[in-house]
Amino acid sequence: MIKKRTAILLVIVAMIIGGGAVLALTNYPIFASSGASASTGLNTTEINKLNAAVKLIEDNYYKDVDHEKLVTGAINGIVGALEDPYSAYMAAEQASEFNESIEGSFTGIGAEVELKNEKVTVVSPIKGSPAEKAGIQAKDVLLSVDGKSLAGLDLQTAVSKIRGPKGSKVTVMVQRPGTPDPIKFEIKRDDIELETVNAHMEKSKIGVIEVTQFSANTGERFKQELTKLEKQGMEGLVIDLRNNPGGLLNVVVDMAEQFVPKGSIIVQEETRGGARQAFRSEGRAKGKDYPVTVLINGGSASASEIMAGALKESAGAKLLGENSFGKGTVQTSIPDSLGKGTLLKLTIAKWLTPDAEWIHEKGIKPDEKVSQPDYFKVAPIDKEKTLKYNMNNENVKSAQIMLSGLGYETKRKDGYFDAETKKQVQAFQKAQKLTVSGMIEAKTAAALEAATLKQITDPTHDTQLNKAIEELKQETLAPASNS
Amino acid sequence: MIKKRTAILLVIVAMIIGGGAVLALTNYPIFASSGASASTGLNTTEINKLNAAVKLIEDNYYKDVDHEKLVTGAINGIVGALEDPYSAYMAAEQASEFNESIEGSFTGIGAEVELKNEKVTVVSPIKGSPAEKAGIQAKDVLLSVDGKSLAGLDLQTAVSKIRGPKGSKVTVMVQRPGTPDPIKFEIKRDDIELETVNAHMEKSKIGVIEVTQFSANTGERFKQELTKLEKQGMEGLVIDLRNNPGGLLNVVVDMAEQFVPKGSIIVQEETRGGARQAFRSEGRAKGKDYPVTVLINGGSASASEIMAGALKESAGAKLLGENSFGKGTVQTSIPDSLGKGTLLKLTIAKWLTPDAEWIHEKGIKPDEKVSQPDYFKVAPIDKEKTLKYNMNNENVKSAQIMLSGLGYETKRKDGYFDAETKKQVQAFQKAQKLTVSGMIEAKTAAALEAATLKQITDPTHDTQLNKAIEELKQETLAPASNS
Repeated sequence: MIKKRTAILLVIVAMIIGGGAVLALTNYPIFASSGASASTGLNTTEINKLNAAVKLIEDNYYKDVDHEKLVTGAINGIVGALEDPYSAYMAAEQASEFNESIEGSFTGIGAEVELKNEKVTVVSPIKGSPAEKAGIQAKDVLLSVDGKSLAGLDLQTAVSKIRGPKGSKVTVMVQRPGTPDPIKFEIKRDDIELETVNAHMEKSKIGVIEVTQFSANTGERFKQELTKLEKQGMEGLVIDLRNNPGGLLNVVVDMAEQFVPKGSIIVQEETRGGARQAFRSEGRAKGKDYPVTVLINGGSASASEIMAGALKESAGAKLLGENSFGKGTVQTSIPDSLGKGTLLKLTIAKWLTPDAEWIHEKGIKPDEKVSQPDYFKVAPIDKEKTLKYNMNNENVKSAQIMLSGLGYETKRKDGYFDAETKKQVQAFQKAQKLTVSGMIEAKTAAALEAATLKQITDPTHDTQLNKAIEELKQETLAPASNS
Repeated sequence: MIKKRTAILLVIVAMIIGGGAVLALTNYPIFASSGASASTGLNTTEINKLNAAVKLIEDNYYKDVDHEKLVTGAINGIVGALEDPYSAYMAAEQASEFNESIEGSFTGIGAEVELKNEKVTVVSPIKGSPAEKAGIQAKDVLLSVDGKSLAGLDLQTAVSKIRGPKGSKVTVMVQRPGTPDPIKFEIKRDDIELETVNAHMEKSKIGVIEVTQFSANTGERFKQELTKLEKQGMEGLVIDLRNNPGGLLNVVVDMAEQFVPKGSIIVQEETRGGARQAFRSEGRAKGKDYPVTVLINGGSASASEIMAGALKESAGAKLLGENSFGKGTVQTSIPDSLGKGTLLKLTIAKWLTPDAEWIHEKGIKPDEKVSQPDYFKVAPIDKEKTLKYNMNNENVKSAQIMLSGLGYETKRKDGYFDAETKKQVQAFQKAQKLTVSGMIEAKTAAALEAATLKQITDPTHDTQLNKAIEELKQETLAPASNS
């Protein structure tokens, strides 16, 4: 099981292969291209035009032409003409990645990897995975797979070489820091499940459940963790949907049902022509009388927004954080109709909140706006150039934001390296036992970034989460002190 | 006749409708989609796929779908699959604009317009055009055309409403600065020819010919101007191809022939498979023994690069300025084969210089690199905010570049508003008879921009042109002083 990270600073591209498609997928019956269809499709003149385009190109273009690419191009062009960023055609390989991301599982060795100095580096082996059992460790650099070098590949391509069918064996050559010779591992691929739900209980009896994606298994996992927290006597709940890009519609409906009273609306779908269908709760579980706060931000999209809307409007939950992404449409995924293994993801409806609001391109406003500190979004420092007094650029700005975030308040945060900035750099260098130069060379820059990253990943600095917990604590205490 | 501007600063979008397509068009016979074709086009399975995509979308998409758009999308997708920025499908309207731009003429009223404060404003009426004869003046704002308001339209759309078939009448309502009531004009549309060649003679007997595009009539105009200069006793020639995006292959070959000796190569075409065809000069005109310098920059593309390459490698001309754009392919334009009025622009060959260099994505290096001053490319100043001492942003940076360009040397040009910058602002304000505040408010910003624009359009500040003229002058003087 692996935990998907939320706040990722300093352009660390950590991926578990798959990753966030912004969508609310549904499984409705769609009109297939059968006789019952209302559309008549392409007529002969139109087909002749397409044919002429292909022939003209294949006979006259100045380079060799891949026929298959032209056909794929035509389908992409048809879907692209909708100008809908959520409708897409996927050829076989892309489609299988998409399905895995939606299902929340894939088959592989189970190592979270990132590209670091252009090398495929293990972030961590997934607990219980074949990679962990074989002895793969964090910071291992993967050199080759089945004898084929991974050098120069982008992450997606490298990962596609590591993955493969369940039960198949793969030989991985690994360079381990501190070990001079590469190490050889033979690993048998297996099903790897992505962890999309992480929960813990605060001392104050406030439970926190983070949901990173609404995959096929997320509803089940959510109920498990919720029940566990309830058994521990939870008095208030934070549901953290920050940076959750969405997922399956039936899963979010199932999850919202835990909180929305019987008969109340969770979400409504509106198809072309305006026909609406409301999804109503079939009755929430008993004992859900604790207060709930939902955390959202600009990365909370689609199914996350359905959840937030339902819990706010039909279950009295409070929304805290920042305005959400704003994606108010529902897609369905149509497999194999455009060729075996292909997938057509098509927007088939709008979704509206219980109060019939269409939040598309607007997002949902939190009841209480709380932002994270500036240093959560700071850009990395270019380490090629030493930054010093009287300079003026974006790198100095990043350094000022980091320093101030770490308690070395520079006052200026606009990129001008003034005397105060120099003083704070010196203080930081002294505390970190670096050469006290007052200049930011590669070493100081790296130390600044490391300290900032450490602070961001430390939950005590998560302003939004802390605020939510604090308020729920006050709310649960208040009646007690009155009675 | 209208002169196309070269250096356009401060995001002035002046257009005469048409404008630069980066291409070297040829008129070769291409393989039409006939029986002689080698390609077999789309097979039944492929056609069925495309049909299925159209039907699935038309039956299930959440909004109404424009059938025509899906078909256009398919063709765009086929052409787009080539990933060639120079191959493109154009539907009827786009195709006619493209043809006009290539032909170098169109039918309309003949007013150069720009969008200024979101209003369609006349830059200048074209000499001898219906607009000029009717009394349209520079700075007139066009309010409506045939009773339809132009408010809120983008420039391209507004222009398409003003243009129309030759001989047709159009009623234009105009707001003239200083005149309270709108003025009504009735104008009869006519053929308007774009001027693509501008020439003048320097006192030093160095001739300068600027070529802004290689349109159908450009070759003829070039020869006219060249002959005129020669008759005036020209001793050296500057051909200015800066920001010239290209045009017709036969036109540039025809023009290069003026300078390339008989039998020498002007340009070579290489089609798929590597077959080469060389275009050789059929003999240059007599009396072309004066030295020639060609001015190029990053906006000199395609046919401009053919011209520069031919004159350098086969006629001993000198290239001066900056590295050229780097577009080494030849397109042909195939009309009506994908529907009446449509156009398929397709890359059918590479072109190589006489010495068989493929300059694609590299460009041509000048023999002598000369850049324009920084203020030629400076960004405009946001006038919402007053800039003052100790501020630090992009607007201050623009102001510093402008001040220094105007002779008020600020030393810093990095956006930090220091004491020296303040001093120079005060000097500028004093000279311009503005309130001497040392701060840059809207009035000072506008004055800075106006003064900078004036300097840019003043040829005495054209470093590249002046350098070319100066060197030719030296070259023509040198033998005289030796004899």
